[in-house]
Amino acid sequence: MKFVTQPTLLIDSKKVISNIRRMKRKADESGVVFRPHFKTHQNLQVAEFFRQEGVSKITVSSVSMAEEFASQGWNDITIAFPVNLREMDQINQLAKKIQLNLLVDSVFTIRFLDQHASNHLTTLIKIDTGYHRTGLLPSDPEIDNILKEIASSPKLTFGGFLTHAGHTYQTKEKAEILDIMEQSREQLISLKHHHERFYPEFIISYGDTPSCSLATHFHGFDEIRPGNFVYNDVMQLHLGACSPGDIAVVTACPVVSIIKEREELAIYGGAVHLSKEHIEADQGFQLYGYVVRLDGDLRWSDPIPGAFVYSLSQEHGLISMPKKELLTFKPGDLVGIMPIHSCLTANLLRENFLMI
Amino acid sequence: MKFVTQPTLLIDSKKVISNIRRMKRKADESGVVFRPHFKTHQNLQVAEFFRQEGVSKITVSSVSMAEEFASQGWNDITIAFPVNLREMDQINQLAKKIQLNLLVDSVFTIRFLDQHASNHLTTLIKIDTGYHRTGLLPSDPEIDNILKEIASSPKLTFGGFLTHAGHTYQTKEKAEILDIMEQSREQLISLKHHHERFYPEFIISYGDTPSCSLATHFHGFDEIRPGNFVYNDVMQLHLGACSPGDIAVVTACPVVSIIKEREELAIYGGAVHLSKEHIEADQGFQLYGYVVRLDGDLRWSDPIPGAFVYSLSQEHGLISMPKKELLTFKPGDLVGIMPIHSCLTANLLRENFLMI
Repeated sequence: MKFVTQPTLLIDSKKVISNIRRMKRKADESGVVFRPHFKTHQNLQVAEFFRQEGVSKITVSSVSMAEEFASQGWNDITIAFPVNLREMDQINQLAKKIQLNLLVDSVFTIRFLDQHASNHLTTLIKIDTGYHRTGLLPSDPEIDNILKEIASSPKLTFGGFLTHAGHTYQTKEKAEILDIMEQSREQLISLKHHHERFYPEFIISYGDTPSCSLATHFHGFDEIRPGNFVYNDVMQLHLGACSPGDIAVVTACPVVSIIKEREELAIYGGAVHLSKEHIEADQGFQLYGYVVRLDGDLRWSDPIPGAFVYSLSQEHGLISMPKKELLTFKPGDLVGIMPIHSCLTANLLRENFLMI
Repeated sequence: MKFVTQPTLLIDSKKVISNIRRMKRKADESGVVFRPHFKTHQNLQVAEFFRQEGVSKITVSSVSMAEEFASQGWNDITIAFPVNLREMDQINQLAKKIQLNLLVDSVFTIRFLDQHASNHLTTLIKIDTGYHRTGLLPSDPEIDNILKEIASSPKLTFGGFLTHAGHTYQTKEKAEILDIMEQSREQLISLKHHHERFYPEFIISYGDTPSCSLATHFHGFDEIRPGNFVYNDVMQLHLGACSPGDIAVVTACPVVSIIKEREELAIYGGAVHLSKEHIEADQGFQLYGYVVRLDGDLRWSDPIPGAFVYSLSQEHGLISMPKKELLTFKPGDLVGIMPIHSCLTANLLRENFLMI
C-alpha cells in the first residue's frame, strides 16, 4: 500500500462495483438504456468497471471529457450540457470518430450547428421539468421551431428530449424526490406522445441520482443518466438516497495539528482538495464533511460520532471532534473525510487518488 | 490573441505589476522584508514579475508548491502551513538545496523534525493572534517548551514568530481591519521583547492581504507575507481593500444559453472553474462573481450593473442580468467573471490561463 503523503482520494473498488451493479440491474429490469454520467468520477479505471458491467453508452458534461473518454474507446457519448459553440472544431473532430449527442435549446444554436458541422450530429432538446437551470419548458413554442429547423438540416438528427431533475437536491424528504421524478416523467411522456407522430424514432432521457437511487423502476423513460450514485456522498446520505456503507470515496488527509483547548484537529486538506461545497447543518454551522478513521489498509470506519469538518481555507481544514477521540490522534497521522459532494472532490483530486 | 474555447483565467500583466510595485514600495519604505505568498497565483510567469521587482524570498502553503518554485530558482522559501510530517522525505530533499523555513506549533513536531531531518532546518513558531485557525496563543506555555527543544537540537534553528491574521476577512469596515493588524503587531512585538534576550536573531512575520493593502506602513514587523493583493478579487473589493481597477484577473467563460423569460445567461463556467466560494449578498442571494464585458483583446470593462453569478453547479454558471444587457449576448459569445476569491479560481485554472 502506497504511503499517503498528501490529500488523496481513496476509492473503494468493491463499493463502486456494487453501486454500479445495483443501478444497472434496476435499469435492465425496467428495460431502459443505462447511460451513466461520467462527470462524477472522470476516472479511467472506474470507467472500466462500468464497461465490465455491460455499459457502452455514457454521459459527460464537457467536450474535454468526451475527448478523454473517446480516446479510451467509448464511442457513444452524450454531452449533457448546452452545446458550447466555441468548441465547434473539437466537436467536428469527435463526431468523425464516435456517435456524438449534443444538447440544444434554441433555433440560433441549431442554425449554427447546421452551418458549421462537418459531420452528422445527433441533437437532443434540453427540457426544463422544474429545476430551472437550463432547458426549455415543455410548453415553449421554441420546441416546435427547433424541430422544424432540425428537419430541414441534412446534417442534424433529432435524438429526443432530455431532462436533468436537479431540483431533487432541494427537497426535505424522499417522497418529494419521487414526486419530482413522477412530474418529470409525465412531462417527458406527454412531449413524446405529442411529437412521435412526426418523428418516429427518438428517446426521452432522464438524469439525477437521488431519484434514480430511490426509484423502484424507470418505466416510461427510454434512458437514465445518473452519475453521483457511483460514489455517493454526505449530500446523498442527507437526502436519504444512500446509506453510509454506499459511500465509495473518502479523502485521506494528514493531521498537522492538535488544538486541545478548542477540541479541534487541523488537517492538510482544504478547499483545493475537498471543495467549498457544504451543507447548512441544523446546529447552525457549515458542514464540509464527516470524519472517519483509516486502518492500515486505508479502509475506513463509519463516521466518528460528533466529529465534522466545519471550516476550510485554501489548504487547511478544521475538524471539531470530541476530546476522547481527539486525543487518539497526533501530527503525522491520517484521517479520512467523507465528501459533501463527491463530484467536486473527485474533480479536484483527479490526479491524486488510490484505488483500494 | 488565442481563441478562447473553455473557461480561461485572464491575467492582466499591467495590473499585476502595478499591484506588486505598490506593496513592494510600502514594504521598502517601512524597511521590512517582503516575502509574498505565492499560493494565490502558483504561476511561474507571475513569479518572474516579482523577481523583476527585486523579490527573492517567498511564502507558499504546501511542500509541493515549495518544490515547484525551488525548481525555478527560488531559494528562500517559507512553507506557511503547520509542517506535514508525512512529507519528511520531500522536506529533506528541499532543505538540501534551499533555505527552507517551516512552521511548528508543538514539542511533538519539533522532536519528530529533530529525529528525521537530514539537513539544517529553520523553524518558525505559528502564533494565533485572534484568527483561531492554527497556531499557539501568545500566552501558551508550549512556546517556551518548543524554544527549549529547538535550543537542544543541533539541526534546528529558531527563525521567529509568524502569524496570519485571517480574521480580517470577517470584518465589516476598514477600521476593524487595521485594528486587527494593530493587535497582531502588539502581540508579536511583546513576544519578541520577551524572548530576544535569549535568542538574539529572529524575526516576527505578519501575513494577510486586507490589512497589508490598507496599512500605510509596516513598522514593528520584520517581514510581511500578503498574497492575494497580486490579483485581488470581489472579496477584497467588498472589504474595501482594493478598487475594481486593482482586480487583475477575470475568468473568460463561453455563453451557452440565453434564458429570456428569467433574464438569465447560462455559461460554461462552474464550480470546477470558479470554485463554490461566495459572498452572502445583502439582497439575500449568494454572489459567486461579478460580470464584465470582454473586448476583442480580452480586456475587460467595469462590472455590468445589476449582473451577477448567482448559482454554480459542476460546469454550469447562471448569471442574472437586466434584459437590456442580456439581449446583447448570444450563444458562443464570451463573458468575463470577476472572481470572489482569486486564490481558489487561479488554483482551479492553473493550467488554463492567458496573460494579457
